[in-house]
Amino acid sequence: MYSLKSLFTILFFPFLLLSISAHRYTHRARAPCKEMVFFFHDIVYNGENYKNATSAIVGAPEWGNRTIMSSPNNFGDMIVFDDPITLDNNLHSPPIGRAQGMYFYDQKDTFSSWLGFSFVFNNTDYKGSLNFAGHDPLMNKTRDISVIGGTGDFFMTRGIATLSTDAFEGSVYFRLRVHVKLYECWKLL
Amino acid sequence: MYSLKSLFTILFFPFLLLSISAHRYTHRARAPCKEMVFFFHDIVYNGENYKNATSAIVGAPEWGNRTIMSSPNNFGDMIVFDDPITLDNNLHSPPIGRAQGMYFYDQKDTFSSWLGFSFVFNNTDYKGSLNFAGHDPLMNKTRDISVIGGTGDFFMTRGIATLSTDAFEGSVYFRLRVHVKLYECWKLL
Amino acid sequence: MYSLKSLFTILFFPFLLLSISAHRYTHRARAPCKEMVFFFHDIVYNGENYKNATSAIVGAPEWGNRTIMSSPNNFGDMIVFDDPITLDNNLHSPPIGRAQGMYFYDQKDTFSSWLGFSFVFNNTDYKGSLNFAGHDPLMNKTRDISVIGGTGDFFMTRGIATLSTDAFEGSVYFRLRVHVKLYECWKLL
Repeated sequence: MYSLKSLFTILFFPFLLLSISAHRYTHRARAPCKEMVFFFHDIVYNGENYKNATSAIVGAPEWGNRTIMSSPNNFGDMIVFDDPITLDNNLHSPPIGRAQGMYFYDQKDTFSSWLGFSFVFNNTDYKGSLNFAGHDPLMNKTRDISVIGGTGDFFMTRGIATLSTDAFEGSVYFRLRVHVKLYECWKLL
Repeated sequence: MYSLKSLFTILFFPFLLLSISAHRYTHRARAPCKEMVFFFHDIVYNGENYKNATSAIVGAPEWGNRTIMSSPNNFGDMIVFDDPITLDNNLHSPPIGRAQGMYFYDQKDTFSSWLGFSFVFNNTDYKGSLNFAGHDPLMNKTRDISVIGGTGDFFMTRGIATLSTDAFEGSVYFRLRVHVKLYECWKLL
Repeated sequence: MYSLKSLFTILFFPFLLLSISAHRYTHRARAPCKEMVFFFHDIVYNGENYKNATSAIVGAPEWGNRTIMSSPNNFGDMIVFDDPITLDNNLHSPPIGRAQGMYFYDQKDTFSSWLGFSFVFNNTDYKGSLNFAGHDPLMNKTRDISVIGGTGDFFMTRGIATLSTDAFEGSVYFRLRVHVKLYECWKLL
């Protein structure tokens, strides 16, 4: 028969272990706590398409300008965007939110960019925003960026978004497929 | 009477469950682990106020320039700022830190911006920095952005900051109230 | 002798406590789950060094330009970079990855900057990216920024990077030592 004292020692010993090791062990993720797929559509301003354009070059290196991507590889061009998000790959589908933020081209010898932006939703399915940051080597078939936070329905979330270029037409239109995989979900009680 | 073996099975069974499910369940937040309210003050350079200005336009679309916000809705203007943080809404109160970073206007049909910046503290109350990123639809009474990390006293923290525009005077001065709510607090032992 | 019921109450009571308090308590970090030291090398384009330059000014305030840092303190200058990462402090060592992103100078009365960038690896030791954001008061001997996420081998990671300026030659070349300390490590099963 165990004494109350030894039972408590046995009972709490694992907690002691747990609290000591808590932040040395590696979190294991088996599957996302939430998954979603979206598309967004970017039409870059080229000097002649103001009405349809959803983005504009706002910074460029000394050898570039703000209506034509700089050469080579757009290096140094910085673009601010306000792009519609759709559930399928049709630019004219009803937008369910906006992708708003910036990207800039950050590699001299190939096309590659860095993204800082948000997905903004205000509909019956989703209310709130997802914030993204990361490196997008856009010549790769798929590439991952970080979901660094969120608000509203996406309060405090973290995860990964897998990007793929669904269409690319010259330097003016492209469409990205975004597979959002959240591995840290929160609920505000 | 339980055998030692069965007792251990019973004892560790919940841990097994816990470790398997650990990253499928949703974190529940009842209240912030830390809350603070600050104000910061932004005076945009307009070509004539260099001495008092705390920020400057550094990027703009082709139709804009660096002394007047672009029309319509400032879309594409990118601003770097070095703003005083105060504890009340008085621009002339002693600053307790600096808000340093950038914002840019990212919506064509209304005023909206995206922020990437830090709060930097070096006083007796706080030493360290808080890093923020997110979407700021500034026509809304309140809006949330993400606290994506921190250093010093705010080591590894995460949370939400609720912004409200406390004053807005033309396109040169504005003051934001920032209610910081940290839900993930860390201590480096 | 304890009844099965009371035993279960005892067994699960700590879990109840744990789940209620889970997000009020402070995470304690004893040591990083992963540590690495890297160097990266930045050669700013100055109008004459296109071939060797690894970065370029892409935004500047009205009083600045894109080949010379603005005065005073480079305030408002925004730089996009594509810098080699090495394991030692030799610019000519074989690069083991690229540091790609941006920084901008964000203080009027001293040299200070804000960074948003990634470390990108694709070699036998590391495959994946680390994403960084934060305030870099570069006149300090050391300063901390946030690791806000990662992909590949660095899936979902978070931590701190301690920066120190290892060399600074005029306004064209500098080398940063980066001590990456990850406190949140994840594994995708």
